[in-house]
Amino acid sequence: MQIVALGGLGEFGMNCTVIRHGRDLLVIDAGLMFPEEQVYGVDIVVPDFSHLEEEKDHVRAIVLTHGHEDHVGALPYLFERVRAPIYGSDFTLGLAARKLREHGLPHDRHLKRVAAGDAITAGPFRVEFIQITHSIPGSLALAIETPSGTLIHTGDFKMDQTPVDDRRFDFQTFSYYGDQGVLALLSDSTNAEVPGFTDSERRVGEALDGLFRRASGRIIVSTFSSNVHRIRHGPPGRAVVVAAGSQGEPMSALSRIALGDHRDVSLEAGDLVILSARPIPGNEKAINRVVNHIFQRGAEVILGGRPPYHVSGHASVEELKIMLTLTRPRYFVPIHGELRQLLSHARLAERTGLPRDRILLAASGDVMEIGPQGARIAGKVRAGRVFIDGSLEEVEEIVVRDRRHISEGGIVLAVEAIDKQTGALDGDPEIVSRGFVHEEVRGDMLREASGVVRRAVEAATREERADRGVVKALIQRDLKRHFRKSLDRRPMIIPAIIET
Amino acid sequence: MQIVALGGLGEFGMNCTVIRHGRDLLVIDAGLMFPEEQVYGVDIVVPDFSHLEEEKDHVRAIVLTHGHEDHVGALPYLFERVRAPIYGSDFTLGLAARKLREHGLPHDRHLKRVAAGDAITAGPFRVEFIQITHSIPGSLALAIETPSGTLIHTGDFKMDQTPVDDRRFDFQTFSYYGDQGVLALLSDSTNAEVPGFTDSERRVGEALDGLFRRASGRIIVSTFSSNVHRIRHGPPGRAVVVAAGSQGEPMSALSRIALGDHRDVSLEAGDLVILSARPIPGNEKAINRVVNHIFQRGAEVILGGRPPYHVSGHASVEELKIMLTLTRPRYFVPIHGELRQLLSHARLAERTGLPRDRILLAASGDVMEIGPQGARIAGKVRAGRVFIDGSLEEVEEIVVRDRRHISEGGIVLAVEAIDKQTGALDGDPEIVSRGFVHEEVRGDMLREASGVVRRAVEAATREERADRGVVKALIQRDLKRHFRKSLDRRPMIIPAIIET
Repeated sequence: MQIVALGGLGEFGMNCTVIRHGRDLLVIDAGLMFPEEQVYGVDIVVPDFSHLEEEKDHVRAIVLTHGHEDHVGALPYLFERVRAPIYGSDFTLGLAARKLREHGLPHDRHLKRVAAGDAITAGPFRVEFIQITHSIPGSLALAIETPSGTLIHTGDFKMDQTPVDDRRFDFQTFSYYGDQGVLALLSDSTNAEVPGFTDSERRVGEALDGLFRRASGRIIVSTFSSNVHRIRHGPPGRAVVVAAGSQGEPMSALSRIALGDHRDVSLEAGDLVILSARPIPGNEKAINRVVNHIFQRGAEVILGGRPPYHVSGHASVEELKIMLTLTRPRYFVPIHGELRQLLSHARLAERTGLPRDRILLAASGDVMEIGPQGARIAGKVRAGRVFIDGSLEEVEEIVVRDRRHISEGGIVLAVEAIDKQTGALDGDPEIVSRGFVHEEVRGDMLREASGVVRRAVEAATREERADRGVVKALIQRDLKRHFRKSLDRRPMIIPAIIET
Repeated sequence: MQIVALGGLGEFGMNCTVIRHGRDLLVIDAGLMFPEEQVYGVDIVVPDFSHLEEEKDHVRAIVLTHGHEDHVGALPYLFERVRAPIYGSDFTLGLAARKLREHGLPHDRHLKRVAAGDAITAGPFRVEFIQITHSIPGSLALAIETPSGTLIHTGDFKMDQTPVDDRRFDFQTFSYYGDQGVLALLSDSTNAEVPGFTDSERRVGEALDGLFRRASGRIIVSTFSSNVHRIRHGPPGRAVVVAAGSQGEPMSALSRIALGDHRDVSLEAGDLVILSARPIPGNEKAINRVVNHIFQRGAEVILGGRPPYHVSGHASVEELKIMLTLTRPRYFVPIHGELRQLLSHARLAERTGLPRDRILLAASGDVMEIGPQGARIAGKVRAGRVFIDGSLEEVEEIVVRDRRHISEGGIVLAVEAIDKQTGALDGDPEIVSRGFVHEEVRGDMLREASGVVRRAVEAATREERADRGVVKALIQRDLKRHFRKSLDRRPMIIPAIIET
């Protein structure tokens, strides 16, 4: 049996795990990642599914553990290439269906609703869905029975003893499989560095209730939009506004409220804004900007702090140890985290008594092979990141690289008309730049550069001139040198030749 | 008397405050800011000093409170425009001199060394330097006596009772001025939201000592490079490596050590890396990347946590209240912070008993006027941000704007040769793009676009063709529409015409 993650190992987001037995494949989740390349017009990042595309006829099922973007956000890109039945809870499939619809992908007969306790069969795999607790409804873990043994995939989980929807974490079923024998445990590493036990979601409700009772003005609450457990408060006779945008997203409702240009909500002194979410690393500055604007309008802001106005949806160290002890796996694969979380989780497993050689630390693309002789990383398949822009289309890596280059130093175009017969310049070379220098102020610089181009063409031999590629390279070389010497700048330089 | 901040109010960094009495000016600090525009080739941001440039003959002195970049980093850009004596402590002037040297600015006879307890006279201003404690040696507060009354400017401070260099916070002098009567207090707002009392720097030493005693491998410590109080540890017989790069800066020593390409230090399993610094908002992802690489090499990482491996250099709420109580100012101006810190500091002052109408909440550029009839915002002077790139030169705002536009959608150039006499196309229009689509894969797209340009020119009337500006606008309009319709993308479009 083989396990390959196409994303989510050594990186946050883009979770997608493939289980292979013989020729048959089972895919678990198809998530996206929010990119650092956002400034380069990249909206989301999805896994490179070409490995699955090659094997599309052998994919028996796509199983979704829950509806967060990092688990279902890339589903349309997978489903475009691989048509297989998709299993998930009611809530998860609701979100999945919407995504498939947005991409114009017919899907009705592929969606298969399951609930905790159900089991399905797909090729050689039997998958039982297990009730867990997490920060979105309808989250499930998986027990995957294969001819080689049973795998437990936790999905994203915590062990909430008092969940808001009263669907408790199912210790019994995990314990049952632990008794029967688990070949490998794949477990959520997000909070493997966080000591203790994660607070119950119910505590947030209590904390918000306390705030609601004390507040004198209006209340605006912002939270992760999938965290619907928090969207039921509001004492009678008092309006509570729930606004998206807890991460400072510029076009969100909360941002617009903060800036005073929301159609329906305008903040006043005495109003209270509660950010019931944690800042995702990288968003701190954007959140700060929103908070400053809220203060400017005289409203109060609460973010973080005690009593908990936000709790994590992921298991902390003590819960992770319970999961290891309950399932007693032969092999352990920490999943869902950057390398530092995976490593901390691995060390944790060692401390619970698992020998180091039974822990598989893998990166996205690594092929983990588990057999009678043991477990090992047996190879690598194609895996990587595909950039997607606002039009839902791929942005190739070279395009992003060019955008980055230009964004750092600007672009200079040297346009010259060259006589087809003689190879001589026809008219003056024209220099056009953007993001380089302020052209209105630096007209002299453009004239100088035009002279550099003219001299480069005139200095070329007849043979060189006959080859447009050579002429372009000469112009590029001379202009590059010229700008470095005269301005200490390194723009992208593009010679363009028109033959007349 | 007037007080104007050219930076540092409502923004973090770029601290620069101007005190005016009659025609005479005193400048306090000239700091820089690290930009969000980093991806657009902007290395640092400095205040727009044009207001001071206009008044350069009336600037009596530049006073530096301490040597952090957000207080002295823009000094060369100020000194280029305004030659005035520069006062500061030995340590501060050492850092300042180096900066002036880098810019080739002769400065020897302008630097005037002072120590705590010294007083200088500059025009109508008498400035006494007061010993405070902060996270860099040689930090001083200022008591500025003017004919209208005394101002206290705290600089950046905390009230460390056990400083590492034994230079204790000078309660007596603040108390003395409080007794004599303080017209206005300008006080550091950085930690106005942090309850309690900031830990002593000495506790970091104790915490690090504890780690050093337990560590079995090598130790690498990274801290803010100006925090020299922390750079004296190292038990005999044990090497401690102090490496810059606590913020994850890609070219720093720590980054290179983490990536395994540092000339002198290579990490091994069992080594310990201590990040004795806090993540500055916006740097979290870069720091995370470094930590992941350190883990990958098998070393341990300690960042944050208790006992304190880092403490702030700024006063918390209790200290800020003591400062207000000690100096008993008539007016209060919270400085050094984003709006949310300034506002929290203002509320704090109200709670200590200062009436709301004696608290001046101003933004950079606001002219605060304090006179016998009271205090008010009396107007605005030119203030703003100037972008500086790696060559130490200004990058104009329009250049940054163009870089941003291109970085989001790429750039398309439509090059056409037009016959001077007839206005007709000479040869085929050439389409060149970068950061737009993968040209090798999308050659069809370029040919289509060339056709769009041809048709745009051919459809133009004889009169339109006579005006190159009109022809360019027509080409731009048609190409823009074409790309939006066919690809749903919005590149920057630049038509370039060569006359033949």
